[in-house]
Amino acid sequence: MSYELWYWDGIPGRGEFVRLALEAGGIPYRECVRESPDGEEALLADMRARRVHPPFAPPYLVADGLVLAQTANILLYLGERHGLAPASLEGRLWVNQLQLTIADMVAEAHDTHHPISASAYFEEQKDEAIRRAKVFRGERIPKFLGYFEQVLSGPEAWMAGGDRWSYADLSLYHLVDGLLYAFPKRMGTVAARFPNVMALHRHVAALPELQDYFSSGRRLPFGEGIFRRYRELDGK
Amino acid sequence: MSYELWYWDGIPGRGEFVRLALEAGGIPYRECVRESPDGEEALLADMRARRVHPPFAPPYLVADGLVLAQTANILLYLGERHGLAPASLEGRLWVNQLQLTIADMVAEAHDTHHPISASAYFEEQKDEAIRRAKVFRGERIPKFLGYFEQVLSGPEAWMAGGDRWSYADLSLYHLVDGLLYAFPKRMGTVAARFPNVMALHRHVAALPELQDYFSSGRRLPFGEGIFRRYRELDGK
Repeated sequence: MSYELWYWDGIPGRGEFVRLALEAGGIPYRECVRESPDGEEALLADMRARRVHPPFAPPYLVADGLVLAQTANILLYLGERHGLAPASLEGRLWVNQLQLTIADMVAEAHDTHHPISASAYFEEQKDEAIRRAKVFRGERIPKFLGYFEQVLSGPEAWMAGGDRWSYADLSLYHLVDGLLYAFPKRMGTVAARFPNVMALHRHVAALPELQDYFSSGRRLPFGEGIFRRYRELDGK
Repeated sequence: MSYELWYWDGIPGRGEFVRLALEAGGIPYRECVRESPDGEEALLADMRARRVHPPFAPPYLVADGLVLAQTANILLYLGERHGLAPASLEGRLWVNQLQLTIADMVAEAHDTHHPISASAYFEEQKDEAIRRAKVFRGERIPKFLGYFEQVLSGPEAWMAGGDRWSYADLSLYHLVDGLLYAFPKRMGTVAARFPNVMALHRHVAALPELQDYFSSGRRLPFGEGIFRRYRELDGK
């Protein structure tokens, strides 16, 4: 059995949190838009045709008769089904809680460049973006990363404890990766305050399970998605 | 056993989604901030003292040795534990998915009045708020409510099907209630396009399980929380 992953092509986006879990878990999946001759038209057509449990937006995953949308919900399922999170109720809910907190920061990172409208151009909301990004850099990056730093018990720790990563660790890795891309100056200033978070970022980058993926063409570079590098939005 | 609910006092806020599930489910709980002589200081002190599975932000629920934060995560737990969602894997994930989509709209509703910074005053970001609210009214309300309308199979339906409400129905009720409060003009224009959603709003308002709560002082009025009524942000 192979999962069908439906997401836009060309950006890591929210689909990347799902991809990392599938890849690190060694779980077979098909990247439907990339494999279709119709590309993103195929995604739009597939979404329109779904009457049972329709997704509000990509990414969504199809398997075993299930159609699952919302990144954290997809990961909750994969975590349980494939052992990518602790099996206990407490551990399962804790990892879900962390994932939702990561998702909150991801949404805020996106809104730094689109604070008024996701459907309008950056240039149409640049002044507002500059204001919002300043608050994000000054208040929100320290608050969120300070929280994750406190969750990690040390530089060797995973977020749910124990000796194995969970999907929330993969997601935190990608979030930090995105911040390093989008806010290199700011991260250069503050990263030293979050040694456990930065160590986790290095440990996930070095996971044997992910090396094939990282060196493949499947891992897309940052660009026009959630994490964008605009000179105007970064600063020490 | 009684749950401890930790949330700010004085606003419905995100705590209200948890309260509605507890109240409709007939589940005993203590409203810790309201019951404490120290009020919100008690909340801040409790949060600081939590070393195991610390919450990033309220609301959080304490029970049976569990500390659960993130609204959708708390509801996922209550849904499973107290039968406030279907018991099947598929139904459970579907209700979680719906809840996360509701949470996305709730966050966008909040950002209409605080598009730049949650920690600054409305007056400091009023111009940006007017721009963002216009997009929310024009694009986002129809898109989200159109989605929930499509999910509901008819004017008598619950979101997860079947003959009983789930916690996502309670949350959609509260979301619509908040939109009616914050955007009365806009909702006056568009509500007729979403008859199933508006019917669900009436059905939850009439649930026998909730009448005691609604007539008690425990149900707080809207005001300074997520849903706010600013004349400048509404329009047909």
